[in-house]
Amino acid sequence: MKRHLCGVHAVREALASHAKDVAVVYVTGDAARGPLAELSALARSQRVTVEETTSEALDALAAGLRHQGVIAVAGGDYPYVDLDALLERARARSGSPLVVCLDEVTDPHNLGAIVRSVVALGGDGVVTLKDRAAPVTPVVVRTSAGATEHCAIARVVNLSRALDTLEREGYRTVGLDMAGATDLEAVDLTGPVALVVGSEGSGLRRLVRERCSVLARIPLQGPVASLNASVAAGVAIYEVTRQRRAPST
Amino acid sequence: MKRHLCGVHAVREALASHAKDVAVVYVTGDAARGPLAELSALARSQRVTVEETTSEALDALAAGLRHQGVIAVAGGDYPYVDLDALLERARARSGSPLVVCLDEVTDPHNLGAIVRSVVALGGDGVVTLKDRAAPVTPVVVRTSAGATEHCAIARVVNLSRALDTLEREGYRTVGLDMAGATDLEAVDLTGPVALVVGSEGSGLRRLVRERCSVLARIPLQGPVASLNASVAAGVAIYEVTRQRRAPST
Repeated sequence: MKRHLCGVHAVREALASHAKDVAVVYVTGDAARGPLAELSALARSQRVTVEETTSEALDALAAGLRHQGVIAVAGGDYPYVDLDALLERARARSGSPLVVCLDEVTDPHNLGAIVRSVVALGGDGVVTLKDRAAPVTPVVVRTSAGATEHCAIARVVNLSRALDTLEREGYRTVGLDMAGATDLEAVDLTGPVALVVGSEGSGLRRLVRERCSVLARIPLQGPVASLNASVAAGVAIYEVTRQRRAPST
Repeated sequence: MKRHLCGVHAVREALASHAKDVAVVYVTGDAARGPLAELSALARSQRVTVEETTSEALDALAAGLRHQGVIAVAGGDYPYVDLDALLERARARSGSPLVVCLDEVTDPHNLGAIVRSVVALGGDGVVTLKDRAAPVTPVVVRTSAGATEHCAIARVVNLSRALDTLEREGYRTVGLDMAGATDLEAVDLTGPVALVVGSEGSGLRRLVRERCSVLARIPLQGPVASLNASVAAGVAIYEVTRQRRAPST
């Protein structure tokens, strides 16, 4: 699977963590100085080809993403992380990490939009299943607007066990369940939080639902009382970040 | 375009407002009494065919929607309303109506997900453009999970003029703009509100942006500082409903 990594940060991270997957780094002509020069040197030191091109050519490759004059083309498998690495990275980033766990989310558009929301709203990672779940494919990368390159994504065999690990690490595991007894905004989401999101058709599986420390609902009404899965996840992530910004009372 | 209208409410509304578009009403076998008997009689009085079938057959037609034992199959064009009718209906429904205006939203999946969020979160209608915008197609109906049948959707030639009308009617016109100066949660959204949502690629057009009474942003961070259009709309609608539920301080 070919991926385009846009911008100084994404390219530097790719060269640092998985340079052997990077086929080529494109930079604009004015790469002689500044961070681009550094990156070009880093790429060459890892024996990665560096090619100069125009800003317009990068615009076309970036398809709307900010590229800051540099794009790396990476092949190979998507670099999933394992759960421990995800948790360590989340801890390093934030005192109150936010992780989104997906239970059998199989629609690549939903996965892409959720990864995008996690990155844009400032979450720390995504945990999904190895089986019965969408893997990161080019459709996911595109739907995520490139956010897959900035997101720690772990695949686990058993989500209930992953929730146990998260709880042991001090996370509150909050299952999104339209039949949940508690309104999401009534749950204290200011500490470490793992939001657990189910598939659009059937929601959370019973064993996963039972493992959550709280089941929360987004207050809905009317004849169509459900949201698109990525909208529901986006709203929940927003509510977490809103509570954390709110002045404590 | 063939549409499946599921449930007592949707079928009754269709028979009342556009019976001539209804090809057939399917009811489960126990239609002899209760609301289904009433509906069957209403349909027959409008010379609409009523057919008894199994609950399983309705499940298949409903594709996940709640059908309560009755589904109408409607043909003909989607029954858009005009802006005045939308405003009147919104006024009748709520002292603080919520309308979502779409500026050149051309992706049918985004339109469908937004209509679904409007209905599920309790908004009152959608205003979109006649040209350069997605019409209501079967893909939109499906993506909306049938919410198109419960939503007043108006198509206008000129969105700026529609915003003028909304302002005259007492609506606050709130443009969603990631470069907006004000955080959405800092805007008072408890009165009548028209949320104005742009296309995913280019956001609001300049003339539309200038016509909004306030430009508000969802606080984002990081390298991918934008959300999927339907996620952004869903988050904004949620924020409106959250403020209205919140105890006034």
